[in-house]
Amino acid sequence: MSETISPLAPKKYPKMPSIDGVRIATAEAGIKYKGRTDLLAMVFDTGTTVAGVFTRSKCPSAPVDFCRQNLPVGKARVLVVNSGNANAFTGKRGRETTSMTGEAAAKAAGCTSGEVFLASTGVIGEPLDAGKFSHLLAGLVRDGKADQWTEAAKAIMTTDTYPKVATATVKLGDADITINGIAKGAGMIAPDMATMLSFVATDAPISAPVLQDLLSRGVGKTFNAVTVDSDTSTSDTLLLFATGAAAKRGVPVINDPKDPRLAAVRRALGKILKTLALQVVRDGEGARKQVEVTVTGAKSARSAKRIALAIANSPLVKTAVAGEDANWGRVVMAVGKAGEPADRDRLSIWFGKNRLAHEGERDPSYSEAETSAYMKRDEISIRADIGIGRGKATVWTCDLTKEYVAINGDYRS
Amino acid sequence: MSETISPLAPKKYPKMPSIDGVRIATAEAGIKYKGRTDLLAMVFDTGTTVAGVFTRSKCPSAPVDFCRQNLPVGKARVLVVNSGNANAFTGKRGRETTSMTGEAAAKAAGCTSGEVFLASTGVIGEPLDAGKFSHLLAGLVRDGKADQWTEAAKAIMTTDTYPKVATATVKLGDADITINGIAKGAGMIAPDMATMLSFVATDAPISAPVLQDLLSRGVGKTFNAVTVDSDTSTSDTLLLFATGAAAKRGVPVINDPKDPRLAAVRRALGKILKTLALQVVRDGEGARKQVEVTVTGAKSARSAKRIALAIANSPLVKTAVAGEDANWGRVVMAVGKAGEPADRDRLSIWFGKNRLAHEGERDPSYSEAETSAYMKRDEISIRADIGIGRGKATVWTCDLTKEYVAINGDYRS
Repeated sequence: MSETISPLAPKKYPKMPSIDGVRIATAEAGIKYKGRTDLLAMVFDTGTTVAGVFTRSKCPSAPVDFCRQNLPVGKARVLVVNSGNANAFTGKRGRETTSMTGEAAAKAAGCTSGEVFLASTGVIGEPLDAGKFSHLLAGLVRDGKADQWTEAAKAIMTTDTYPKVATATVKLGDADITINGIAKGAGMIAPDMATMLSFVATDAPISAPVLQDLLSRGVGKTFNAVTVDSDTSTSDTLLLFATGAAAKRGVPVINDPKDPRLAAVRRALGKILKTLALQVVRDGEGARKQVEVTVTGAKSARSAKRIALAIANSPLVKTAVAGEDANWGRVVMAVGKAGEPADRDRLSIWFGKNRLAHEGERDPSYSEAETSAYMKRDEISIRADIGIGRGKATVWTCDLTKEYVAINGDYRS
Repeated sequence: MSETISPLAPKKYPKMPSIDGVRIATAEAGIKYKGRTDLLAMVFDTGTTVAGVFTRSKCPSAPVDFCRQNLPVGKARVLVVNSGNANAFTGKRGRETTSMTGEAAAKAAGCTSGEVFLASTGVIGEPLDAGKFSHLLAGLVRDGKADQWTEAAKAIMTTDTYPKVATATVKLGDADITINGIAKGAGMIAPDMATMLSFVATDAPISAPVLQDLLSRGVGKTFNAVTVDSDTSTSDTLLLFATGAAAKRGVPVINDPKDPRLAAVRRALGKILKTLALQVVRDGEGARKQVEVTVTGAKSARSAKRIALAIANSPLVKTAVAGEDANWGRVVMAVGKAGEPADRDRLSIWFGKNRLAHEGERDPSYSEAETSAYMKRDEISIRADIGIGRGKATVWTCDLTKEYVAINGDYRS
């Protein structure tokens, strides 16, 4: 947790409602941080289903391995998350820690360790001593309360400058269901995965395979479309829990991913994932501006996304935005280096509504004054039209500032 | 040209000898910079052969297109280079500029425009007015002198803080030949190409196809193994000229790339390319440390190079080096994100001689004090052994400092 809150932090936070079937507790375990919570337990009623997506890193953390092992059964009773230590690259000891934590949590909740999900975030490579917090789990499971969502978001923060929460209530059949989500992440954020950590829960009665379908389709244009620094974490974990408690209020049980009644849930979930993903970008380490990069006219949607990410990950584009310089030449460079089909002489580039380049050269009608004024905004939108097809994609990033360098030049110590 | 010279600049520069058959002149054309040279002409004797490698950007500059068109003939009489404007993404006007410059240079040197080579470096997207300097070419071609290599290196600088030169003299057959090289580049430097601009000349009598073979093989472990910021330029150009003047001194003419007499030339050229490439890295924008990244034990050499580049391009690894923090966890992250075969539990990591991680976890005998002392050096070496094969690669980069952000947040204006 930083002392300076990101200037892009939300102006106000939503009041997080309860999710029937979910109870939450946090604690100060003192794993690394002092004077703040660093341990979270979420307890789910019997019958809760779960879906997940994880980092594609070849060096995943021990908790990621643990969750991957439990996910196929699709049942969840407890989630335990700690901040301050990622339990990543910790070898055999790391596996012992997840095993011990899983058993302690299972004992506390009266379930099997196959129904426990774990996540850890913080420094990589330091052994995580389960003994530091496993004795707290029984109390957390016992004392969990339904209204602790914002507290949960705070307990999982590392270099985050604000807690990230989102909520939505929509109809499923004839009754309301609610979806709550929390996330954390500020650096080591890149697509090809979820984000660092995000946990979403709903009271909707949705079977595990349907839940997985909803989540896997939901991440493409949300968490997998944001990047802070192109660095994929070892620990990225996004879990979606469905307690089914809303069935008591007449909400139908959904067992088919093609059920048309899911449309509103899909939209609401998409909105929550996008809100959380954008909050992660807006809390990008050192971020002063949010940058939306849209690529149109590419050969395919996949190609468009690759080009968009080449722009969004370019240090030269990101420093130009930090310097409030509409340096569209660097966008040309990034399109060129993406390795995707492109035709220099058909390329057009916009910053906001200002078209700076058109059909392979500077737009003659381009106004430096108007564009300079635009670059002073908090939210910058860059569009590149490749001019060769109909592929389209949007990704989000933040600028690259001296503060990013300062934060990351002195994190571990 | 920056006012502050990189702390990694060479302590001393070699005295550059002449290359028989090459004459050089520079001028202040005032294209963008004031009070410094920004125009270079190199004139080659009749019979000079040429080889080249260029950016793989899909948005190449007009001069890159021009050189690519002339290269297959393999003959060169003049090279014209300007700094301050890249003539990239300048559309039809860009092509008119290269065409006009090519004709003016050809007229001055009494050759065809197919024997002219051009390069431009500087801002992307601004039209380059050939009228600003084409009238100077006749004088430059007439007044060229053999001993102006360091002046040549100065005229092509942009954000470079020092001129980059290298020279070697080796035996070919029974007589000496000399190879001189110059380079420029400080940002927008990434592999998959040459570097921004580099020009190398020798008096050896080597046919164009053999020269191309020497150059294409030479770049893989030199220019194509360095990265400052992962951003591939639109303008990267590396040209190698052979005047053949040494034939008069009894040096044999080489027409076969497998000629065993080439071995020493190959080595000397490799050394020059590596020296120039490292000088580019050591002048990386804001660089305070040189970082050598070696990956061993990968599935193949290609896979090793990809992993090495994932490490070398990681903002989190680069900022850790800037902060003198031996944050090997970020090396684990970068290995994991590279998308190449890897086994977390066989991975070992060294900073210098200090082994920090071994077989998937922190090395128990690792000394924080010794490693911290090591991190204070100017030249840091990182090694990751993947533990699954025999593939090996080394790449070079620099650290990512606040100065990089400062330089690039205010370049165009």
